[in-house]
Amino acid sequence: MIGKLGKFTALAAGAGLAGWLFSRKRGRNPDRQLTGSPNGQKPRIVVAGAGFAGISTLEELARHIDPDEAEVTLVDQHNYHMFTPLLYQVATGAVDSANLTYPLRRFCTTRGFRFICSKIYGLNPLDQVLTTAAGQIEYDYLVFGLGSQTNYFGMQEIQDRSFGLKSVSNATDLHRKIVRNFELAATLDDPEERRRLLTFIMVGGGATGIELTGSLHDLVRHNMIKFYPEISNDEARIMLIEASDHVLPGINEKIGKIAVKRFEEIGIEMRLNTRVAGIRDNAVITVDDELIYGDVIVWTAGIKPNPISAGLAVEKYRDGRVIIDEHLRIPAVPNIFALGDAAASIDPETGDTLPPNAAVAVQEGEVTGQNLARLIRGEPLIPFTYQPMGELIALGRLKAAAEIGPVVFSGMVAWIIWRMVYLTKLMGTRNRAGLVVDWIASIFAYRKIVDTSPDE
Amino acid sequence: MIGKLGKFTALAAGAGLAGWLFSRKRGRNPDRQLTGSPNGQKPRIVVAGAGFAGISTLEELARHIDPDEAEVTLVDQHNYHMFTPLLYQVATGAVDSANLTYPLRRFCTTRGFRFICSKIYGLNPLDQVLTTAAGQIEYDYLVFGLGSQTNYFGMQEIQDRSFGLKSVSNATDLHRKIVRNFELAATLDDPEERRRLLTFIMVGGGATGIELTGSLHDLVRHNMIKFYPEISNDEARIMLIEASDHVLPGINEKIGKIAVKRFEEIGIEMRLNTRVAGIRDNAVITVDDELIYGDVIVWTAGIKPNPISAGLAVEKYRDGRVIIDEHLRIPAVPNIFALGDAAASIDPETGDTLPPNAAVAVQEGEVTGQNLARLIRGEPLIPFTYQPMGELIALGRLKAAAEIGPVVFSGMVAWIIWRMVYLTKLMGTRNRAGLVVDWIASIFAYRKIVDTSPDE
Repeated sequence: MIGKLGKFTALAAGAGLAGWLFSRKRGRNPDRQLTGSPNGQKPRIVVAGAGFAGISTLEELARHIDPDEAEVTLVDQHNYHMFTPLLYQVATGAVDSANLTYPLRRFCTTRGFRFICSKIYGLNPLDQVLTTAAGQIEYDYLVFGLGSQTNYFGMQEIQDRSFGLKSVSNATDLHRKIVRNFELAATLDDPEERRRLLTFIMVGGGATGIELTGSLHDLVRHNMIKFYPEISNDEARIMLIEASDHVLPGINEKIGKIAVKRFEEIGIEMRLNTRVAGIRDNAVITVDDELIYGDVIVWTAGIKPNPISAGLAVEKYRDGRVIIDEHLRIPAVPNIFALGDAAASIDPETGDTLPPNAAVAVQEGEVTGQNLARLIRGEPLIPFTYQPMGELIALGRLKAAAEIGPVVFSGMVAWIIWRMVYLTKLMGTRNRAGLVVDWIASIFAYRKIVDTSPDE
Repeated sequence: MIGKLGKFTALAAGAGLAGWLFSRKRGRNPDRQLTGSPNGQKPRIVVAGAGFAGISTLEELARHIDPDEAEVTLVDQHNYHMFTPLLYQVATGAVDSANLTYPLRRFCTTRGFRFICSKIYGLNPLDQVLTTAAGQIEYDYLVFGLGSQTNYFGMQEIQDRSFGLKSVSNATDLHRKIVRNFELAATLDDPEERRRLLTFIMVGGGATGIELTGSLHDLVRHNMIKFYPEISNDEARIMLIEASDHVLPGINEKIGKIAVKRFEEIGIEMRLNTRVAGIRDNAVITVDDELIYGDVIVWTAGIKPNPISAGLAVEKYRDGRVIIDEHLRIPAVPNIFALGDAAASIDPETGDTLPPNAAVAVQEGEVTGQNLARLIRGEPLIPFTYQPMGELIALGRLKAAAEIGPVVFSGMVAWIIWRMVYLTKLMGTRNRAGLVVDWIASIFAYRKIVDTSPDE
């Protein structure tokens, strides 16, 4: 095993490179100390939720205020920020979840902020108190960024019998299930049972559903099949079900057409205009009472605001999001900023709202961070204006579709832009280095195809 | 977020380097095809267990036989090989488990071997059949390498209330528990409860216990404490309990003394000559009825052969290992080679047995791979002789102890050798690249401190 000196030298060189990267990263924030108790004289800013909106607010706050100007506390039920746009790649073995999670402890301590890891149970705007498992947290200003959750439209059977894609455990559970089904199918003789285990059904043609489907195709066709000589290519099926007559609603129509064309070319079964009424054991049932058999069913057909938003007695948009003003504040409770998936910013001219996505959340957080600094100093607030950054949708192996300014294009250039943008957006040098290793391995060697489920 | 061009360039360079590594690795095994059905005319070699013994046997077989000389099948309940010597670093956040697992599917298909992922329920030497969840597997020659499991000496309460360190899920469970306890303690006021949550007790002073304890010290003192301003250094305690009067039994005594001295210096509480009688809720109870309180208790105080070995009606060593001859075969059933932790090779002169460790398993597999090729060709077998390679024990941050030939030494040189040896032994270039990233991050930046347990 020893003696591969060339390879080892190269690894060591990579190590040196990585070492330099880390040394540049360290000490970026010179000794900002955690502020005093929440009963001090300084205004208390509490950020609820460490998604894109919350993190972006805090990054901007760190740039605009000194630690002695305000006490800043972040509260989240997890002790990490999750880079959700790549969660589907965890499910398809392209990326390890460890490279997509960034520790909030590190994020907060290096910026002089306080972090409380606790589940949030409620919000009382009158008393200015957030109720958590760790106790009451009082605030002067609250940034409400608790995001959204999967919408099962009240159908418990769907929640019980499908995989979601909103959390690390969702994604790793789905990945293990896919691999486990391949292993199981490889040991069985019954062709129907094998086919059932190897049929993967995605419900919902939004961005998550489309990117997951394209990536799953890569996993199955370019990885699994190669390593399972017992299983033939046509035994594995990938299917996408969408209720409307087109995919990627809310995104440039041309991109949706590119996606459909691409999926037709690579043999993904698409069922447009197909409404799902429920999920039985091993089958999706449509409103026309058709049964579509498959053992792995992924539900990405909708999101809804988190339960804390639902419990807030303030004006809501028709989908349940809290309505906010031009400064992203709740009009009736102006010391609460509501951002991201939990909030609806309505365009006064068109009546449209911004979509619940990462780009909107990040921009909302940036303005909110500045406005909090302005509030503390008694300066006038700046209004929020969304700057569309374009759209990028990955469509599987070396393919993507992009809308940048007035131009829509697809292919490998779009794919390269897609990868570069996501790599730069990911938090933490360590995670970026890990993501590069994962992506290179996924493209040139193979994806993760191990099932590390606990033994039964 | 964009604009860090220098860092990006460096990442891209690293990517290129990694790409070269992967390209060198690919195509190493030119299209060896999976052999036909197990009912063919070729001798059927079945390897049960994909630990160090099994993998080493298969690697040697691939070198010495052609695919048309024998049908080779590997059976394991997991679809990956686990690099167990670094499992403790998964528990302490230094390494991601994904970098320590290598897919057996890839290993087998590239070598023309068959792989069956299935739990093994039994072995019938008379009928030459292995019973698995996937069905009966007939063999002409069997390599029995099912390894060992944690020995709780019949005490179910210990098994229920302690963490083991034999599987990926053991290690990730322990890591999450450590992080979760820090998060929980940070939200509590009761000093006794905080101290209980932050007391970590390791039972067993063997190699695993010692390396885990040293690494846990690094995690707690050099990582966690820094990111938890609510928790003071003296609230966190690390304790090692060992029944005998010295640590590292079976390893050069000098190394044990180096370990004890090192642990005393860095403030690890050591309790030698302390026998554990049981574990109650949140406390270890000794044979002297002393209660030692702590919420996280890790049991590494012994191993025993797997249950399949226990069920075999052949001669056993006093610890339950199957006794093997100089060719590593079971004397009564000479078409079964028993290797690794499951087998005891007794030195005819001294009466000693070889220790159950990776180095022995690897060397046994090497000889067995060659002997299987010899058997098939009717050539005489070569006897097994163990070549001691020395001992390497990591003792935490930049420290290790080594025995190489007649020399015992410790410190940073030993630590560097330790890292280099483990890096070269790890399977797969991708895993090695990931391990380098993890180690650099752990040394220069921070360890993994996120808890990705599923939401309750």
